[in-house]
Amino acid sequence: MKTLLLNNISDTKKNIKEWKKNGQTIGLVPTMGALHAGHASLIKKAKETCDKVVVSVFVNPIQFGPNEDYDKYPRTIEKDLKICEELGVNIVFAPSPNEMYGNGVKLSDTELTFVCPPYNLIDCMCGKSRPGHFDGVATVVLKLFNIVQPDFAFFGQKDAQQLFILKRMVHDLNLDLTIVPCPIVREKDGLALSSRNTYLSDEERKTALTISKSLNQIKILYNQGIKDTKKLFDAAISILDKSLELEYLEFRNADTFEDVQEINGTTLVAIAAKCGKTRLIDNEII
Amino acid sequence: MKTLLLNNISDTKKNIKEWKKNGQTIGLVPTMGALHAGHASLIKKAKETCDKVVVSVFVNPIQFGPNEDYDKYPRTIEKDLKICEELGVNIVFAPSPNEMYGNGVKLSDTELTFVCPPYNLIDCMCGKSRPGHFDGVATVVLKLFNIVQPDFAFFGQKDAQQLFILKRMVHDLNLDLTIVPCPIVREKDGLALSSRNTYLSDEERKTALTISKSLNQIKILYNQGIKDTKKLFDAAISILDKSLELEYLEFRNADTFEDVQEINGTTLVAIAAKCGKTRLIDNEII
Repeated sequence: MKTLLLNNISDTKKNIKEWKKNGQTIGLVPTMGALHAGHASLIKKAKETCDKVVVSVFVNPIQFGPNEDYDKYPRTIEKDLKICEELGVNIVFAPSPNEMYGNGVKLSDTELTFVCPPYNLIDCMCGKSRPGHFDGVATVVLKLFNIVQPDFAFFGQKDAQQLFILKRMVHDLNLDLTIVPCPIVREKDGLALSSRNTYLSDEERKTALTISKSLNQIKILYNQGIKDTKKLFDAAISILDKSLELEYLEFRNADTFEDVQEINGTTLVAIAAKCGKTRLIDNEII
Repeated sequence: MKTLLLNNISDTKKNIKEWKKNGQTIGLVPTMGALHAGHASLIKKAKETCDKVVVSVFVNPIQFGPNEDYDKYPRTIEKDLKICEELGVNIVFAPSPNEMYGNGVKLSDTELTFVCPPYNLIDCMCGKSRPGHFDGVATVVLKLFNIVQPDFAFFGQKDAQQLFILKRMVHDLNLDLTIVPCPIVREKDGLALSSRNTYLSDEERKTALTISKSLNQIKILYNQGIKDTKKLFDAAISILDKSLELEYLEFRNADTFEDVQEINGTTLVAIAAKCGKTRLIDNEII
């Protein structure tokens, strides 16, 4: 099947209106491209769930901070398109920043309407070190939702905080769609897949492995009955390679996102660390 | 025709899905109730334009400041329903704050997802004296749009800044609907209709009249060739009753909302003033 590559919003809307008219269900997989097996798992899930599947490929400038990797973020649209074609994607929507935000518009809250997630959800974890990041994510995702009007949207559990925030957005803004969380896909040795893994040197990749190992250790200890997050934290730290720069290792109630001291319910254990210049995140639900 | 009064979101969505299935176009008139001839003109326009018309009646707590008139804002749902019935409205959607925002949720940006209009558009006119007001307006209107999924939404030109901000929201967030601005409706003597006019004493009502008179004077002078907004401003001020507390009198480019010194294009002349404890706004396009 031929995948349609569309760069503009109105063509995309036109195609989607046609599907809607025919009563077909639509699945959206929002991505920043540089597709890997993690994205592929989202796309496969979307194909199972929906009549038509749209994959958006857009490196969203408004979710990157001034000193982050917007410019060097990998862009591999030819390869992405091929992967989408193999997976039977109907439309790859790959707009330019100008198409999404307009020509000559300042990409900031002085000139653009923003969606701002609850402060309680952004004043922690990735939100603390990336001010404005989740405003940018929520805004672009709402735009994509409005353009594609999906019945289901598929997001990886790897970006756990993003997933929580987007679910809340759907609830708070009364959107008519279901967010489908999909499990983290890992390399055989445990490293969580990420488009940013391509930044890692061989040496860095080895130290990066201790991130998933430390989460694994927490799971083992928890299953042995240790519920004090302070103890679990210390055990994880002892496993993390000393060359990694830990940004956070947090325990959050998976339903409320509140900080957890003593585990007594489904809990998100989330970690972020810098490996050289590369910022990596990972998490486990225990 | 019987107008359906609905207080909950899911019933409203259910009815609207049925209409959508039948290919009927939907018009939404968002109001805070206390309907007057101004609202009636919006509803009539909606009836002319659309197959089905929904009027929302919701005094939205998140658009009122702590010292504003949320508690005393007039609530006249029985009368409103009768007016809607006479005008052939299909659904009056009148939710409670709990229905809209959830039980026990703090109605602030710590616990709710907000829509934040561009700072350039809120850092002036009503936005200056009412911090957070337009965030609250944009958020509730987006929620109403998502619940009712209208093809057309009708707003009065009286709230000129609101209208501009909502048009921008529709553009920025890629919403699939058209905002229809409707002209200001005035009493015979020129006073712009407002639900807040009921707050005015007889004496205050007289002084309030000088608001529309001052705008009218600007129009007359402009038509005589005066384009310097400083001169127009001074002329208007000389007409305003001294007991009014002027909040602003601004000249803005009607397309860009930029401040205007010398008029050379369609221009919004907008005024806000306090008449006793009652805050009134009015405007003219010249």
